[in-house]
Amino acid sequence: MARITFHKSPLPIVVLLTDFGSKDHYVGVMKGVICGICPGAHVVDLSHNVMPQDVTEAAFVLRSAYRYFPSESVFVCVVDPGVGSRRKIVCLRANKQLFLAPDNGLLSVVASDSPPEEIYAVEDERFFLKPVSKTFHGRDIFAPVAGHLCKGVEAAQLGPPLPRLQPLRLPRPVRTPGGTLRGEVIHIDHFGNLITNISDGILQTAFRCRRDRIEVSLKAHSIRGISQSYSEVQKGNLVALVGSSGYLEVAANEGSAAEMLGCRKGDRITLTATAAS
Amino acid sequence: MARITFHKSPLPIVVLLTDFGSKDHYVGVMKGVICGICPGAHVVDLSHNVMPQDVTEAAFVLRSAYRYFPSESVFVCVVDPGVGSRRKIVCLRANKQLFLAPDNGLLSVVASDSPPEEIYAVEDERFFLKPVSKTFHGRDIFAPVAGHLCKGVEAAQLGPPLPRLQPLRLPRPVRTPGGTLRGEVIHIDHFGNLITNISDGILQTAFRCRRDRIEVSLKAHSIRGISQSYSEVQKGNLVALVGSSGYLEVAANEGSAAEMLGCRKGDRITLTATAAS
Amino acid sequence: MARITFHKSPLPIVVLLTDFGSKDHYVGVMKGVICGICPGAHVVDLSHNVMPQDVTEAAFVLRSAYRYFPSESVFVCVVDPGVGSRRKIVCLRANKQLFLAPDNGLLSVVASDSPPEEIYAVEDERFFLKPVSKTFHGRDIFAPVAGHLCKGVEAAQLGPPLPRLQPLRLPRPVRTPGGTLRGEVIHIDHFGNLITNISDGILQTAFRCRRDRIEVSLKAHSIRGISQSYSEVQKGNLVALVGSSGYLEVAANEGSAAEMLGCRKGDRITLTATAAS
Repeated sequence: MARITFHKSPLPIVVLLTDFGSKDHYVGVMKGVICGICPGAHVVDLSHNVMPQDVTEAAFVLRSAYRYFPSESVFVCVVDPGVGSRRKIVCLRANKQLFLAPDNGLLSVVASDSPPEEIYAVEDERFFLKPVSKTFHGRDIFAPVAGHLCKGVEAAQLGPPLPRLQPLRLPRPVRTPGGTLRGEVIHIDHFGNLITNISDGILQTAFRCRRDRIEVSLKAHSIRGISQSYSEVQKGNLVALVGSSGYLEVAANEGSAAEMLGCRKGDRITLTATAAS
Repeated sequence: MARITFHKSPLPIVVLLTDFGSKDHYVGVMKGVICGICPGAHVVDLSHNVMPQDVTEAAFVLRSAYRYFPSESVFVCVVDPGVGSRRKIVCLRANKQLFLAPDNGLLSVVASDSPPEEIYAVEDERFFLKPVSKTFHGRDIFAPVAGHLCKGVEAAQLGPPLPRLQPLRLPRPVRTPGGTLRGEVIHIDHFGNLITNISDGILQTAFRCRRDRIEVSLKAHSIRGISQSYSEVQKGNLVALVGSSGYLEVAANEGSAAEMLGCRKGDRITLTATAAS
Repeated sequence: MARITFHKSPLPIVVLLTDFGSKDHYVGVMKGVICGICPGAHVVDLSHNVMPQDVTEAAFVLRSAYRYFPSESVFVCVVDPGVGSRRKIVCLRANKQLFLAPDNGLLSVVASDSPPEEIYAVEDERFFLKPVSKTFHGRDIFAPVAGHLCKGVEAAQLGPPLPRLQPLRLPRPVRTPGGTLRGEVIHIDHFGNLITNISDGILQTAFRCRRDRIEVSLKAHSIRGISQSYSEVQKGNLVALVGSSGYLEVAANEGSAAEMLGCRKGDRITLTATAAS
């Protein structure tokens, strides 16, 4: 009787996060390479529409998402302004998951939330396509390494251990002596919701008053109170709430706050406590 | 010998239809949740580019598609302007398939074409993520419920039966006493084709003359005759035909009718029979 | 003991390449049809954002990608300005892979790189959906035929053999008597990189001098030397290099060359050798 090998449980998921967009062959080719090395691999798109070269946005998307994927998922994050330069590629194990990315700060948000179990430089060319181009490491390094990880190669086989990751310089909210909290818009989503760098935790520390007494100001508009859902205000009105990623956001119910306010990433937002009425 | 469990036939397909777009983590996170609950689930994207909050457009896309998916497919439709309000979430069984959506009319087009076999309110929190946010039920309710359905949970376990779905107020074509048929543009597709609410059936009932004698008028343009394919007219010319979804559409061969005519959803179209020449 | 049938190796991959965009049901429906015929089929999106009806762009994307997919992959390419006319649909076997497309030149780039093993006209209606619409052969012919191929139907069963494919009229680079090489921009990618029709091979034949002595001119700008990676120049500066698909491209490091130069497909590029300094 022939011996048959198969997986009792499905293969790990490979999750792709890039700034490659959807019109070219770039993402499709990565999937071809992964499936060629690990037939049956289950590849899931997290996003390919990170703004080109915007490592901070990629880090935000990854941080909002990774905890919702199963253990052993392999995240492949290619937002890589330094491709072809001497920047390292790293493999991080954290949260019982694996993360591949250029060592440009992209993974630092994961590492600061979930203690790194292992960090390796990705250097062993046995796991790369040959020849390696200087312009498309997604195809020639990231995809084949992901395929090999998916197939059972250990992270430790990829290269030497690293003591730490490059950090990401993220804008942090600031409290003024007068009690004002100042943050900024770090992400504008598909709906035009303005997501800020003010986390729920910071909000709780900064204000002891009830949330309906916090005033949120942005671009000469101000919103009284922090709500719980978009539909608490009339259609087309502005609302401030702590969104599903755990950050304060300003939205327009059934509309685009970004369009209404002419807002862009980096715009400042201020929060103050108002007197009880 | 170890006992091995596996599926003789593949798992049901989970089909996603949302207005979440492609730049954020929203869709990817739903897939992570589904695969975490039901490893190996086969998730297919129907569309994530329904216009934000446009329930009517989602209903059109769903109606054009669901019959082409296998029995037991689980459709997850999240176009949900009322998220966080008291609107219900429903699970419909029809056409031997399952449909999850907010009870906002989205599923009524399926129910009117394919008699509902069962309708349930989705209420049992055992199948939800905890805590449930008030802004992202796609992640916290729809995805985990779909994962559980995919894994074998019965629709009847999700909550109490409902007698009916909320209807969708769709614009209907109108016949004037003079014999004119008036409809409107309900969807503009990727190619700029203008799809109307005039079905092939309505067309057959309204006009007994030959189709080459029907005159189609839209935005001060008129087209003589209803054709069968785009290529029946010269490149760049307008053509009216019954499209692949069964509705009258106005297109420009190898061009965009929407751009040529400056058309938008809701624009009126009129059909009249002309005299035999 | 019950007999159990399963695949020792996974099913072939079905790779989709269309101009259908992402807002409509068109792509999703094709996946529904494929999975209905061949449950468990693994469908991968190569791109659905080829410019509408742009067969040349589709050919470029396919040529840059197909070699990176496993043997036995089934490519389904639907960029089809002639849908509903008398144009043929063809099935090509080359590079140990299968390719379905309208016979409009799309596959000629594959056939010129990888000698065709077999070519068939796709005519046997047993493998089509019924009735076949005149406007959506992606759903009614391409998807079901791909599903059947995936399930084990042989290409030879689809219809009669064909001696050759329709060619694609591609612009070719020209050498002037003065030693200048003239090409044009054939693809602008998501990053705004300007990809030309000048392959690495043509470059090698045309110039015997060192690459840092070639001057690249485009839209009144000129770039001295051909680099190896984007990061060899300062952020925002123009760079010419042979990209990952093997063609000369002009890019802006961390920027969009297309925006900087106001470039469009078809714009001319000229290369000359400069004197040694």
